[in-house]
Amino acid sequence: MKETLYRCRTKYQEIAIIDTFQYGKMLVLDGMVQTTVSDEFVYHEMIAHIPMRTHARPRNALVIGGGDGGAVREILKYPDVQKVTLVEIDDQVIEAAKRFLPEISSSLEDCRVDLQVADGIEYVRSLEDAYDIIIVDSTEPVGPAAGLFGSSFYEGVFRALKKDGILVAQTESPFINAELIRTVFRRIKAVFPYTYLYLASVPTYPSGLWSFTLGSKLYNPLQPAGSCVPANTKYYNPDIHISSFSLPHFVGDLLKD
Amino acid sequence: MKETLYRCRTKYQEIAIIDTFQYGKMLVLDGMVQTTVSDEFVYHEMIAHIPMRTHARPRNALVIGGGDGGAVREILKYPDVQKVTLVEIDDQVIEAAKRFLPEISSSLEDCRVDLQVADGIEYVRSLEDAYDIIIVDSTEPVGPAAGLFGSSFYEGVFRALKKDGILVAQTESPFINAELIRTVFRRIKAVFPYTYLYLASVPTYPSGLWSFTLGSKLYNPLQPAGSCVPANTKYYNPDIHISSFSLPHFVGDLLKD
Repeated sequence: MKETLYRCRTKYQEIAIIDTFQYGKMLVLDGMVQTTVSDEFVYHEMIAHIPMRTHARPRNALVIGGGDGGAVREILKYPDVQKVTLVEIDDQVIEAAKRFLPEISSSLEDCRVDLQVADGIEYVRSLEDAYDIIIVDSTEPVGPAAGLFGSSFYEGVFRALKKDGILVAQTESPFINAELIRTVFRRIKAVFPYTYLYLASVPTYPSGLWSFTLGSKLYNPLQPAGSCVPANTKYYNPDIHISSFSLPHFVGDLLKD
Repeated sequence: MKETLYRCRTKYQEIAIIDTFQYGKMLVLDGMVQTTVSDEFVYHEMIAHIPMRTHARPRNALVIGGGDGGAVREILKYPDVQKVTLVEIDDQVIEAAKRFLPEISSSLEDCRVDLQVADGIEYVRSLEDAYDIIIVDSTEPVGPAAGLFGSSFYEGVFRALKKDGILVAQTESPFINAELIRTVFRRIKAVFPYTYLYLASVPTYPSGLWSFTLGSKLYNPLQPAGSCVPANTKYYNPDIHISSFSLPHFVGDLLKD
């Protein structure tokens, strides 16, 4: 740790921006590392490009959480995208990211971005047949984010998606939160016709191995329908797209009925 | 950290066995975590089963380093294996593993195991056309293990392997030791006709993402020739075998000429 650049207690959480020797600047919420400038590319590329390239031609996307702007930045790499809505409950996260993490947040200034400071659960409840892609870029399943891991939220997401829409949610580490993965997979599977788990290596997250759960109404992520391969990625490529769905034995076992 | 079970300075390094709350007992050499009872399965399965299943019918194998016995345990899961030679430079590592980590080391008592306390570099120099598989399960490339990352050692390994033999070496983290991976890949590629890099997620190693470099005289690891799929694995499976060779963009870039 080099120095604390910013610290603020909001209505929802404690926000800190800390500069570190090994990983550069990091955003920390309630003591948990959310993102660092050195390895954020893995998480943001993998939460965005897997659903975006699975879909044939996504025109709009909704990001719930993700106030740092990293997922939005990746989504905007697709030229057909006309609108990205970011629904972040805590405007202070957005402000801190804009001020201290421009490498990640600069895309939030793009004219295609619609910034909403709101509760994602309520926001989704008001939607029907509205989005091609919904990304749940949440904190861990305690505090303000707990409801983002619940069945009724996933039912709302299903309704909010168009008829060929795709949901992706970050679902923690299989080494540490195996039970959460098992539970969430079943919940999403109960709502969506097709459900998949995929993995990526994020050094600054607990255990370094992170999972994402994808619910799809139509598309099979193992046969990506999108022809546009995003430029300037550091982790994602078409080969990684497929291989990220290969699961170590102990992870695959979590998904069995 | 719960307690230090054992600590000993040998001619080569400082050995410690530490009990921890999160990962159970761990073997630490010169302050670097080598293996823990909770996640050793990833590293040992992946360093052993990728070469073992790539080969059509391995009868013998040489493990250099790996005094904890984990790689040997995995190799012995193949019924055709008649002999596994373990060459460990520091007999105190073997003794500490036998005493404190029986979960990992118990296979060292198997009658097919030939234990040699010797310098791996010199041991290999004396061999010709001798082994189907050679696994370099070394510590990091400083101190006693430095020579295990050198060109002349890889030339010796090539001679020590049979005409369809396979080398695998642990080659550190692409997030942290990118230059080492680049260098070692070129060195092995200069000696072996086929060279590949593959990855696995090991939570207790720096960054959580670990690389292995494979040199092959004949077999293509993407078309494993072995029909025996090892039983009782927790990480390895035929799907992971293939997908572990898919490389994130920034890792693939390291291997380009």
